[in-house]
Amino acid sequence: MAEPQSKIRLVLCGVGRIGQIHFIDMLTMLDVEIVAIVDAVPGAAKKLADQIGTKSFASLQELFDDGSVTVDGVLICTPTHTHTELVKLCLSRGIPVFCEKPVAVTIEEVDECYALAREKGVPLLCGYQRRFDSSFVRLKNAIDAGQIGEIRIVKTTSRDHPLPSFAFLRTSGGIFHDSASHDIDVHRWLMGCEPVEVFATGHAFYKEIAEMNDYDSVVILLKWPNGAISTIDLCRNATYGYDQRIEVLGEKGMVQAENKPQTTVVISNEAGIHHDVISHSFTDRYPDAYKSEIQHFIQLVRDRTNWEAKLRVKHADVRNTSIIASAAEESARTGKPVKLTF
Amino acid sequence: MAEPQSKIRLVLCGVGRIGQIHFIDMLTMLDVEIVAIVDAVPGAAKKLADQIGTKSFASLQELFDDGSVTVDGVLICTPTHTHTELVKLCLSRGIPVFCEKPVAVTIEEVDECYALAREKGVPLLCGYQRRFDSSFVRLKNAIDAGQIGEIRIVKTTSRDHPLPSFAFLRTSGGIFHDSASHDIDVHRWLMGCEPVEVFATGHAFYKEIAEMNDYDSVVILLKWPNGAISTIDLCRNATYGYDQRIEVLGEKGMVQAENKPQTTVVISNEAGIHHDVISHSFTDRYPDAYKSEIQHFIQLVRDRTNWEAKLRVKHADVRNTSIIASAAEESARTGKPVKLTF
Amino acid sequence: MAEPQSKIRLVLCGVGRIGQIHFIDMLTMLDVEIVAIVDAVPGAAKKLADQIGTKSFASLQELFDDGSVTVDGVLICTPTHTHTELVKLCLSRGIPVFCEKPVAVTIEEVDECYALAREKGVPLLCGYQRRFDSSFVRLKNAIDAGQIGEIRIVKTTSRDHPLPSFAFLRTSGGIFHDSASHDIDVHRWLMGCEPVEVFATGHAFYKEIAEMNDYDSVVILLKWPNGAISTIDLCRNATYGYDQRIEVLGEKGMVQAENKPQTTVVISNEAGIHHDVISHSFTDRYPDAYKSEIQHFIQLVRDRTNWEAKLRVKHADVRNTSIIASAAEESARTGKPVKLTF
Amino acid sequence: MAEPQSKIRLVLCGVGRIGQIHFIDMLTMLDVEIVAIVDAVPGAAKKLADQIGTKSFASLQELFDDGSVTVDGVLICTPTHTHTELVKLCLSRGIPVFCEKPVAVTIEEVDECYALAREKGVPLLCGYQRRFDSSFVRLKNAIDAGQIGEIRIVKTTSRDHPLPSFAFLRTSGGIFHDSASHDIDVHRWLMGCEPVEVFATGHAFYKEIAEMNDYDSVVILLKWPNGAISTIDLCRNATYGYDQRIEVLGEKGMVQAENKPQTTVVISNEAGIHHDVISHSFTDRYPDAYKSEIQHFIQLVRDRTNWEAKLRVKHADVRNTSIIASAAEESARTGKPVKLTF
Repeated sequence: MAEPQSKIRLVLCGVGRIGQIHFIDMLTMLDVEIVAIVDAVPGAAKKLADQIGTKSFASLQELFDDGSVTVDGVLICTPTHTHTELVKLCLSRGIPVFCEKPVAVTIEEVDECYALAREKGVPLLCGYQRRFDSSFVRLKNAIDAGQIGEIRIVKTTSRDHPLPSFAFLRTSGGIFHDSASHDIDVHRWLMGCEPVEVFATGHAFYKEIAEMNDYDSVVILLKWPNGAISTIDLCRNATYGYDQRIEVLGEKGMVQAENKPQTTVVISNEAGIHHDVISHSFTDRYPDAYKSEIQHFIQLVRDRTNWEAKLRVKHADVRNTSIIASAAEESARTGKPVKLTF
Repeated sequence: MAEPQSKIRLVLCGVGRIGQIHFIDMLTMLDVEIVAIVDAVPGAAKKLADQIGTKSFASLQELFDDGSVTVDGVLICTPTHTHTELVKLCLSRGIPVFCEKPVAVTIEEVDECYALAREKGVPLLCGYQRRFDSSFVRLKNAIDAGQIGEIRIVKTTSRDHPLPSFAFLRTSGGIFHDSASHDIDVHRWLMGCEPVEVFATGHAFYKEIAEMNDYDSVVILLKWPNGAISTIDLCRNATYGYDQRIEVLGEKGMVQAENKPQTTVVISNEAGIHHDVISHSFTDRYPDAYKSEIQHFIQLVRDRTNWEAKLRVKHADVRNTSIIASAAEESARTGKPVKLTF
Repeated sequence: MAEPQSKIRLVLCGVGRIGQIHFIDMLTMLDVEIVAIVDAVPGAAKKLADQIGTKSFASLQELFDDGSVTVDGVLICTPTHTHTELVKLCLSRGIPVFCEKPVAVTIEEVDECYALAREKGVPLLCGYQRRFDSSFVRLKNAIDAGQIGEIRIVKTTSRDHPLPSFAFLRTSGGIFHDSASHDIDVHRWLMGCEPVEVFATGHAFYKEIAEMNDYDSVVILLKWPNGAISTIDLCRNATYGYDQRIEVLGEKGMVQAENKPQTTVVISNEAGIHHDVISHSFTDRYPDAYKSEIQHFIQLVRDRTNWEAKLRVKHADVRNTSIIASAAEESARTGKPVKLTF
Repeated sequence: MAEPQSKIRLVLCGVGRIGQIHFIDMLTMLDVEIVAIVDAVPGAAKKLADQIGTKSFASLQELFDDGSVTVDGVLICTPTHTHTELVKLCLSRGIPVFCEKPVAVTIEEVDECYALAREKGVPLLCGYQRRFDSSFVRLKNAIDAGQIGEIRIVKTTSRDHPLPSFAFLRTSGGIFHDSASHDIDVHRWLMGCEPVEVFATGHAFYKEIAEMNDYDSVVILLKWPNGAISTIDLCRNATYGYDQRIEVLGEKGMVQAENKPQTTVVISNEAGIHHDVISHSFTDRYPDAYKSEIQHFIQLVRDRTNWEAKLRVKHADVRNTSIIASAAEESARTGKPVKLTF
């Protein structure tokens, strides 16, 4: 066990599903002190806060107005439409921010947030957690080490399980920004450059989703400057579990990240060979990634020097992923390929 | 061992790589007699014929002119540009034909061949061997049995190994007709209907292939009447072996056909867990399929009744697959999606 | 997130490798308060205690003498030879104990500890963690649900990685009590009864281990009342990782628990198909089990009613496993099978 | 396709299940002519012979008396008790013999057969087909190439599917000579030396097998001169298929040969991930091995020079495997380990 360091004082803002994951993870980080918990739902923040003997507030503004808490960083895990305002509130006080994806709904707001972070010299980290998944990082490292040579074809599969509630889907921003953006970011990360064109098509097999004018099944095709081609396939409901795979073909070989069964048990009988189902949901699939991204945030809080260079999810990543997601949606709606400019 | 039947007398026409596979397979079929071997290359047919004590000819025309051989069926395994003439030569004599893919280069010739077969009441079977592969048949049966429900996304991967010779590629007809047609046929077979639109894109990473105005890496996207979406990815050179996979997502689950390692050996050491490479080439990958399609042909020869209904590869399969391959190539060359009509 | 409960006040006694695992795990349990940390090594307990603002002591006796701490339960993670004394110290005060395996070195002392627990009505849980591993529990449940019918052959593989230090091995108690006992307990757990005979053989490939008069590679064979046969194979040094597998053959099928690769990454190239190495050590392999056994302990602390019936590791398990391990060692040393009586 | 060679004229003696496998395999060998088929069952030989236009006889003696057939080699695939006489009949005429396992029932007869072969300078090959299986050969080569270093633990699993008929089992010679001998030979082959001691135990779960005084489930343990330990586990009825696995642990790593599913199809749904069953029987599992051993025999027939050195299954292999099988049976019946001498 390493030498103890001075504790980083963090505020958790938003205690929904993802906020609770970060809460538990931070409890295991001996160099972190959760100094306050914030949530607009009455009692939600207090309930958690009481269990670890910390303070709770109904809003970040209330916390700042209170003035009694010294804050080294804030984790924003609230609904998407509140992100921009909360990000700015923290940054303007010089407080580093970890913000769940997306930082903002519009490109203009994204740019404003990062401009403010740059102006204030304060780290802003957006939570594209797949970049922190140990299997995906291992895959990325294999590519960067030249193990498969120049990339030719990249394929990702992202299929939800279980089917999200229609109530959630109505406010999700649509499958392109809610789901596909994760994949688009992964493709950009693996390629290390921006695509030149996107073509997409989709369908709503659920009438409820059709009525939202959204899609539940989508395929996206991206073209890259070197001639490489990407495909992304998405589905809102894979009965067999949360299906999250990457496959990259290069001139020298192929690297894949496969799904992970929940156990290693295999049953063989007259009907065949049976393995257990794969991870059930994003909380099962990405526990290490959620922890790792917070650890990255803590490093940025500890040392702001050259923070923009150190960021593992940068302004351009958030910005351009959003532009590509919008172009993919445009392609699906018009039936035509869309050239990309950034 | 089943009761012996009267022997079917077959002629093998063309003794290149695929012809030799059929030759060896027929030796194990106790109800088949290879009554003659035909090849234009001097000595090639004779060399094989001598080993089993049968006759050899330089051409099918010569064999028919000779008149000494009674023929129940002919296997045509010659270069593509000779197919149509040889198919017609046999059909016009009332002799059933198994013809390697494609039956003809143009849609008009395809239609002529099948019109003649229908007119004469003589079976014509085209060798789309993937429909006979035991794993693919198993996958198709799972779909037809409703195990995955309505199909939503179909993906096939077809990557050559080793890189075919540039000499071959120059005469291959291009990656869309030579390679992608196999995948297009598989998608049509699995869906049980025709696609409504195709979008494709490709690149030549090898300058020799670029100079042929062909592609070595291609992705094709197909849209289906029910909203399902297909992707096909092709590459002329997968270093790790002949990569042939199918994945079908349905409303109730997913079915995949994976690659087959050459052995079942696994070596575990400090560097990881190592399995042997997968099948090296189509001859390694599809031995059962090549045998099974000839057995299907023999059944058609034995009983011509309702042969068109019994055909596992029909006129429409050959015709429409070719139309879609041409449309995919048009899409790749124009950069635009192409609506399909048949 | 469940309703908060009153907190259970636990003392961690011993902060070596396994003690630190329990420490971190308890931090994530919102219903647990670590009220003190104990370790004889000067500063070791204090270093951890300071990070969470709790008390530290040099010994359990000192803690009890101090009188300032209310204790609901104690975790004993100290060296084996200290276990019995510490277990009795707690039990005699009416404090429930979780004790790392083994509870004592001799059968007599094991019996004394449990007799005291029974007399005082205080839970004593011994840490055979494999019974809490999610894959092994899943396998056990499949057997108990009758999925493989009557058991015929049981095989476990337990191979260390990396090679433990010779210094540790000199004090380990020998491979039969240190390592094989885990497997023996698993076989007893799966069979649900006691074996009737044991035969074992072993060899020391490392001269350092031969000089200790110990073995580094061992095979044990157990016979069961119904005629079933078990094998256990152990090795102190598997280069490829910590190899922990179970295989059970029954009349209706087979169930296995396989190893888990560290990532899901697969690299395919000319040399074959490569997966990442498996778990490196017991800390990588059994994180869920270590957490789960403490949660079981907390349940016993919360409700002592019928604690002996609820125990997932009982007196007989600890006692008989030790008897069998001794008999296995006797067999290896004499070269003869040994009948078992309990 | 290689240059044609002069044909080797072989006689197939015995057309049961294994004889028919060799029959079909030889049809694909262009350098082999099946000059006669022999079987004592009236009509059995004739039925096959007629299909390829060759001669048939009721016995080898009849064939030799007939004098009309020139014979380069004989394949003996008759019931075990007839082997010795037929082997000697051929060898005494200077005709090479391939004989299915075992060459004889007693060690004395085995020695007599090989003495005669040596005296006459005529190859005698015994059909331990596992030495010719491509996966097992690959595993053996990995060991011989030093990839896992010195061997420490060897494990094989051999489980029949389906349960052989009780009628067959009554004449099988018992599980040790019928089944275990294959595994014993594999262990000797992999180790490259003879074991020093054997311990075995077994049980009959089927009362019919108990009544034969045989076992249906057996575990054998072998000790080797270098300290390595082997286990063999056998079962007459594995519901999930014909289970044939090898695992070898060495100082540098582990090499395994796993089972092969019948297809590569995987179905994923709410219940888990399902692969097809493994090979159903020895005919499914070892097709390449059966072919390869006959090709080895043909090489020996073509060139007898130093045939004993070239033999891939030697006199000592047949002899010592039989001695070990007998000792294993003795151990199971007496409950004591048995020292081995050869």
